[in-house]
Amino acid sequence: MSCSALRALTRAAATALGALAAVAPAAPPDGIALGREKFVQCAPCHGADGRSTVVPQYPKIGGQSAAYVVIALRAYREGRRLGTFAAMMSEVAKPLSDADIDNLAAYVESLDSGK
Amino acid sequence: MSCSALRALTRAAATALGALAAVAPAAPPDGIALGREKFVQCAPCHGADGRSTVVPQYPKIGGQSAAYVVIALRAYREGRRLGTFAAMMSEVAKPLSDADIDNLAAYVESLDSGK
Repeated sequence: MSCSALRALTRAAATALGALAAVAPAAPPDGIALGREKFVQCAPCHGADGRSTVVPQYPKIGGQSAAYVVIALRAYREGRRLGTFAAMMSEVAKPLSDADIDNLAAYVESLDSGK
Repeated sequence: MSCSALRALTRAAATALGALAAVAPAAPPDGIALGREKFVQCAPCHGADGRSTVVPQYPKIGGQSAAYVVIALRAYREGRRLGTFAAMMSEVAKPLSDADIDNLAAYVESLDSGK
């Protein structure tokens, strides 16, 4: 291939890549980072690492499976958990959107469980 | 103190200790060991170490606070948890006595959480 042909090909490739980048979807918002922001309201009871043992009646949640956290938070939000401290968690969960819950769950799962 | 007086004192002390041992309450039954026996029915879903991730919708429970496990199991037993998989846990918890729940909670807390 001649040098000029190679230059033309390189330009064409660059143009094609640029076009691809323009139509590629934006990077998804970082659920874990958004969850970290929301977690501020959880930390006083559950600990900054999600593993507080100050009030043993409250569960350790750091490292918990995100899929389970979603189930639990939705159940609290929708009044389907009526256990001893459920009323408190229901109040906390009521204003959360589905996206908030997904983000919180992703952040909780990301917290080091020590394993 | 003479040697014979020392012997008498030693005998008296031994008698007193024997009497104390006789009236001391029997060692409490080992809740953790009893809980381990009951945990057989929990292990298929929650893992032998309580930290199964085979079904992410099920929570990791190994090392969880015993006080919280008591609250959760009683709530399931008494139908106060109506979340996604709550019906299954309610069936599991229904036959459990308060003592069964206390023992299970002690065993679950004793499981290594990695910390």
